[in-house]
Amino acid sequence: TNPVYTGLPTTIFEVMSRLAIEHGSINLGQGFPDVDGPEDVRRMAAEALIAGPNQYPPMMGVPALRQAVASANKRFYDLDIDWKTEVLVTSGATEALSDVFTSLIEPGDEVVMVEPLYDCYVPLVRRAGGIPKMVRVTPPLWKLDLDELAAAFSDKTKAVLLNNPMNPAAKVFTREELSGIAELCVRFDAYAICDEVYEHIIFDDRAHIPLMTLPGMRERTVRIGSAGKTFSLTGWKVGYVTATPRLLDPIAKAHQFTTFTTPAALQSAVAFGLAKEDAYYAGLAGDLAKKRDRLASGLERLGFEVVPCGGTYFVTADTAPLGLGGSDVEICQRMTVEAGVTAVPVSAFYVGDAPKTFVRFCFSKQDSILDAALERLGNWI
Amino acid sequence: TNPVYTGLPTTIFEVMSRLAIEHGSINLGQGFPDVDGPEDVRRMAAEALIAGPNQYPPMMGVPALRQAVASANKRFYDLDIDWKTEVLVTSGATEALSDVFTSLIEPGDEVVMVEPLYDCYVPLVRRAGGIPKMVRVTPPLWKLDLDELAAAFSDKTKAVLLNNPMNPAAKVFTREELSGIAELCVRFDAYAICDEVYEHIIFDDRAHIPLMTLPGMRERTVRIGSAGKTFSLTGWKVGYVTATPRLLDPIAKAHQFTTFTTPAALQSAVAFGLAKEDAYYAGLAGDLAKKRDRLASGLERLGFEVVPCGGTYFVTADTAPLGLGGSDVEICQRMTVEAGVTAVPVSAFYVGDAPKTFVRFCFSKQDSILDAALERLGNWI
Ligand SMILES: CSCCC(=O)C(=O)O
Ligand SMILES: CSCCC(=O)C(=O)O
Repeated sequence: TNPVYTGLPTTIFEVMSRLAIEHGSINLGQGFPDVDGPEDVRRMAAEALIAGPNQYPPMMGVPALRQAVASANKRFYDLDIDWKTEVLVTSGATEALSDVFTSLIEPGDEVVMVEPLYDCYVPLVRRAGGIPKMVRVTPPLWKLDLDELAAAFSDKTKAVLLNNPMNPAAKVFTREELSGIAELCVRFDAYAICDEVYEHIIFDDRAHIPLMTLPGMRERTVRIGSAGKTFSLTGWKVGYVTATPRLLDPIAKAHQFTTFTTPAALQSAVAFGLAKEDAYYAGLAGDLAKKRDRLASGLERLGFEVVPCGGTYFVTADTAPLGLGGSDVEICQRMTVEAGVTAVPVSAFYVGDAPKTFVRFCFSKQDSILDAALERLGNWI
Repeated sequence: TNPVYTGLPTTIFEVMSRLAIEHGSINLGQGFPDVDGPEDVRRMAAEALIAGPNQYPPMMGVPALRQAVASANKRFYDLDIDWKTEVLVTSGATEALSDVFTSLIEPGDEVVMVEPLYDCYVPLVRRAGGIPKMVRVTPPLWKLDLDELAAAFSDKTKAVLLNNPMNPAAKVFTREELSGIAELCVRFDAYAICDEVYEHIIFDDRAHIPLMTLPGMRERTVRIGSAGKTFSLTGWKVGYVTATPRLLDPIAKAHQFTTFTTPAALQSAVAFGLAKEDAYYAGLAGDLAKKRDRLASGLERLGFEVVPCGGTYFVTADTAPLGLGGSDVEICQRMTVEAGVTAVPVSAFYVGDAPKTFVRFCFSKQDSILDAALERLGNWI
């Protein structure tokens, strides 16, 4: 069996969710909302399943969704995207990432990425024959050192992989940082692979800036979005890729032989969802910002040192002031078993040596659940 | 970009479907039924979308579906499968194949396969670093020469890939053939990767024999099935893999980073479907056998020489007696444009030199559509 996948552990998100279920713990680990997204979107999908047809949609995706993705790029970022040649629908952002690495990376290519990172990035790059080159940011500032980033580039660099807004750091890259990254991509003639699934989950009047909008980046950026995060339907597994035809073409060929297509009923409903009025998007981010504040202030009160959060579902907290002892992994296990609250250890997002006192909480939960978690943590501490 | 996917053509099925739409042609090319599967299955999925939760199901699949897959293995083939360690749900059989090659094949491994073959096999094996070793069968007999097969094995052989019932040949492998294949797998210590998506679409009192049931094969076989074909819902993209834990474990890790999971509403509905009474399965195959006869006898009447069909949605016909001129590719194009009937050229299923007068028709269509196609072909000839 292939060494990249043999003996690999189950993803930390699933491991912690299983542990939470086993112990009847409140699950603030794996990132998903506990209230499903818009009922009209779900109803539309349900009706399409009944009405049919339930046969293969086109390989690139249902035209209505590809058009909606192109329109959203215009509406939110003033990007002119040709839906017929520049948009591909995938079975979630994970499939999109798999398709992108499978099709763009050749053995020996280097891919620059920023730790902490989502756990599929490294195995996908390695399985494609690529070599991950790590640059690291650390809490509480998560500051990206552009000189360090520059040092990670070489003439073997094929691409940089950027997750913005960034999980688990809840960091939203500034225009200065993005400019620095874009300059490096242009200088080294590298692609940018942008995992922007949290593009609409961004707080406090920050604006999401797709790297694709920066000078020189339109033709070298692959932008990945997700209905799961934008519509609080993480189980639907509908993602989308936007890229110039020269890049999208091989990506679509990898998609053709990876899943071929994605259920049409879900695609049509997501197309409808993407056209929702501004109030929907403002409500999504506004509600989550309140939840962030609720959880963060509660954690602060309990003595955690909470790291600022600009977007995503997640807040990172330093457990050091509590003097709990043990690593972040041990703390997360004990918190699940003893306190009945589950978080994810931040060290799981680093490949090598990592900060060892930080844990990540997911706040996309009902207020009553967040309050109950805080109460349990309070009793435990 | 990676050379395996760069410049690759769009799959022949999609190409012919697009051409059919463009010319208002009756599409007997791409393999899908034109009437959706059971309404109760679709209704159950629709209700689950409304009721929720619509968040990430477990990475291995919804327990009810994994249990249903294990039960179906017992019921139909007397295979004892442990659902907790031996069943994985994937986003269609294509994802299953991608996961399997990604995780089981190392660079330099040889994979023996039988032409004609489904067009994802070769790129998936090549992208995994494997080397396809072809053995060929040809119409009208599609006879597998076991000596030729044996000659394709070597100590570099990691796996044999078998599609049974076989698309496009509509060949159902006999117990003798399967025994020969199994012996080779045991002798060369190779895995068998079995694409058995048409397991329930098999005619004339033939029985589907999973290679996994043969002596020595239980621990070395990966068996792939599909709800799309079994429930006439090809757009749902729900597949399942059955394999011993030592093999399933790396396959599940590839799945974890390829799609991670598949919509729970569809999974639950498929679990319900798999438990349907024998009459459902008999009806599926019985109806399709009648459609096969309807189309085959009509084609015979028009002068095609129809190749025997033991299973799948497809019948292959030799155009040679009609003296149409040109290759099978040209004939399929002209038939679409001039006759208004679309088929798929059989040469598209061969890697190298191929028979050039055979075309494949899909008969999983309403009787009125089959009749109309025959009438159009009659007028054209
Ligand atoms: C594959 S489950 C991961 C959910 C998520 O995005 C996260 O928890 O970071
Ligand atoms: C990916 S569409 C293919 C449908 C099918 O199985 C076939 O036509 O052979």
